[in-house]
Amino acid sequence: MRPRAHFPISSAVAFAPGLVDEWCLSKLSRLLNGAPVRLQLWNDESATPAMPPVATVLVKDRATLVRLLLRPALAFGEAYSAGRLVVKGDLVRLLEAVNRALAGRPYEPGARRVPATPTSAKDNVHVHYDLGNDFYRLWLDEAMVYTCAYFEHPTATLEEAQRAKLDYVCRKLRLTPGDRVIEAGCGWGALALHMATRYGVTVRAFNISDAQLRYARERAAREGLSDRVTFVDGDYRTIDGRCDVFVSIGMLEHVGPADYAIFGGVIDRVLEPRHGRGLLHFIGRDAPMEFNSWIARHIFPGAYAPTLGEVLPGVLESAHVSVVDVENLRPHYALTLRHWLNRFEDHQEPIRAMFDDAFVRTWRLYLASAQASFASGDLQLFQVSFGRRADTAQPWTRRDLYAAPFHGTM
Amino acid sequence: MRPRAHFPISSAVAFAPGLVDEWCLSKLSRLLNGAPVRLQLWNDESATPAMPPVATVLVKDRATLVRLLLRPALAFGEAYSAGRLVVKGDLVRLLEAVNRALAGRPYEPGARRVPATPTSAKDNVHVHYDLGNDFYRLWLDEAMVYTCAYFEHPTATLEEAQRAKLDYVCRKLRLTPGDRVIEAGCGWGALALHMATRYGVTVRAFNISDAQLRYARERAAREGLSDRVTFVDGDYRTIDGRCDVFVSIGMLEHVGPADYAIFGGVIDRVLEPRHGRGLLHFIGRDAPMEFNSWIARHIFPGAYAPTLGEVLPGVLESAHVSVVDVENLRPHYALTLRHWLNRFEDHQEPIRAMFDDAFVRTWRLYLASAQASFASGDLQLFQVSFGRRADTAQPWTRRDLYAAPFHGTM
Repeated sequence: MRPRAHFPISSAVAFAPGLVDEWCLSKLSRLLNGAPVRLQLWNDESATPAMPPVATVLVKDRATLVRLLLRPALAFGEAYSAGRLVVKGDLVRLLEAVNRALAGRPYEPGARRVPATPTSAKDNVHVHYDLGNDFYRLWLDEAMVYTCAYFEHPTATLEEAQRAKLDYVCRKLRLTPGDRVIEAGCGWGALALHMATRYGVTVRAFNISDAQLRYARERAAREGLSDRVTFVDGDYRTIDGRCDVFVSIGMLEHVGPADYAIFGGVIDRVLEPRHGRGLLHFIGRDAPMEFNSWIARHIFPGAYAPTLGEVLPGVLESAHVSVVDVENLRPHYALTLRHWLNRFEDHQEPIRAMFDDAFVRTWRLYLASAQASFASGDLQLFQVSFGRRADTAQPWTRRDLYAAPFHGTM
Repeated sequence: MRPRAHFPISSAVAFAPGLVDEWCLSKLSRLLNGAPVRLQLWNDESATPAMPPVATVLVKDRATLVRLLLRPALAFGEAYSAGRLVVKGDLVRLLEAVNRALAGRPYEPGARRVPATPTSAKDNVHVHYDLGNDFYRLWLDEAMVYTCAYFEHPTATLEEAQRAKLDYVCRKLRLTPGDRVIEAGCGWGALALHMATRYGVTVRAFNISDAQLRYARERAAREGLSDRVTFVDGDYRTIDGRCDVFVSIGMLEHVGPADYAIFGGVIDRVLEPRHGRGLLHFIGRDAPMEFNSWIARHIFPGAYAPTLGEVLPGVLESAHVSVVDVENLRPHYALTLRHWLNRFEDHQEPIRAMFDDAFVRTWRLYLASAQASFASGDLQLFQVSFGRRADTAQPWTRRDLYAAPFHGTM
């Protein structure tokens, strides 16, 4: 008598591949929990949802089908990149529909993150941000801002919305001429240069991406701002000196929660004890959750999108500051990503020439899945304003934030 | 040979009272950590701070002096109430100066709170809120709002600022006619009635203070709103039904952190899963800390002012909602309390006639210490707006919150 197979597929495949495909297909369809998505196999077998489908996923071979059952998020992403799986219809709507159907369900988290060392942090950053300034220039706005924009109206252009974001952050920070600002993680330098130009402050901006630093320094020199804006090659742990204002846009996601108290300690150490104030802008969540395994492996190694409940005690209690204002700009990030994805698609050809087909598919899926995650509420975008409790210059209401149009958006 | 006394004072008092008084005075002075406060004893001995003093504390007997060293907060409050200690100069400035000097230092917390049962919650509430509507009417605004007001300008009257607060909360809640609102802890009913009158919603408002419920129901009947506003005698745990909007102003402080998940579960159970939204307004802190032992024993038994880092995971993650907006209105509460304290002082005579001298001093100290705590940043006032992630009606920016003047403030 043959021993009973632990895993029915392997033995069953040998004598009845058709039955196994059917079993996998129905299992996969159940995993989707009613999401309006049609599944189709290489042999034209298909599973159609109860609701009219928003898109069809074509699985091109049996190995992919089986992997989708075992590690859905990782297998979907890798098969999409490799072309072993094709989406017919709107990719973003498909991903949104799946997010909504799976909301709050057990999912497939990435491997547990190890706290980043300065070296591993640099490696993680290198993978993503050092892909080449020419690549990012093709689909970001003209100021190269790679974080959530602020759309005063949904019809604003991406350029307007990114300028408004920079200015909105400056208003929340209540910059006044002569303020000393420290920026932790400065991308290609857009905010640092905007603050110096428009608000007459001096900025020391820290970054560990070589390509971004090179670009930012060149731009500062070209605009004659090198004396007022210093771009420092250094991890947030190396931040020193003293500042009136501390700002960090889209960097906290690369600080592991295990290091939040260290980050908060840095803020406490450098921020003026009496009138110091600041802002953190980061991708977050409603409840603690890791990025899925595909994002964790292929897009943002080591990254984590925290809840406010993790950031406030972890970072801001350690920094000895009061939370003054929190704003959730989630819909703005969904729209920002729509702009990025559209521009990315418009420049597929040069991007394919720089990299290859698989890269184009990988990045399309990343941008589309991020857009879907913000649209469905799996991800949030928080701006947290804070200040020393001794700061009495805080305005009486938030009305002034909205009193005037934003620089550059007229 | 006599055994060495464990506590030097008791034996020393017997032979050299003068030396002991001096020792206690200098010890007490050191406890103040440089606060600009002059200490004076019954025998005219005194300790004068380095900085010009904002006020003098006159300690009228040795027992009080010793108690001040052992349990400073409790002894100060009890001796002030009993008249065994007198403050010469500005009480609020004195308390503010002490708060500032002691910020972040070990302090004297109240006894550990036991999680409130429905019965103990009712007892705790009775002690404070059932002192008589006539008493509160003497020093609250005309609408009887006993929570932080919203001053569009610091020169607004308390009446204007309380009306503006009610309206500001309604705007943050995006009330539309026909909405079903649940209010947890409704005081004398001002918000519930404002929402029904100005926004055409129906309200079920829960409370466990008999005196407040009686007042609120009478007012609803008088204003012909009994069909649209129901005041329910019930603890938050008893809230049932279904609502579009959930609001709670100044009630969370009476829910112990151990019960936050229960409170969040109540919100989750009653709030519409698609478009539901809400707001929590509560006294909070930058870092976890109990109320001091005098407040805990004599003013707010069982109460706790939480950090955002306690409320967001505890209540709102359990409620399955996204944080949309957090605003810290700390300066507004300091100003609200200044108005209350001024009115309270203006009505000392009738209040003394209702109660007694000790009551007047107790409440003066409570209002003054609360004002000082908000002014110095020991206490914060948070308004947290939240919503279901499926709610897509959220406005694009916060600009509309500030677009029009508030009802009733013109």
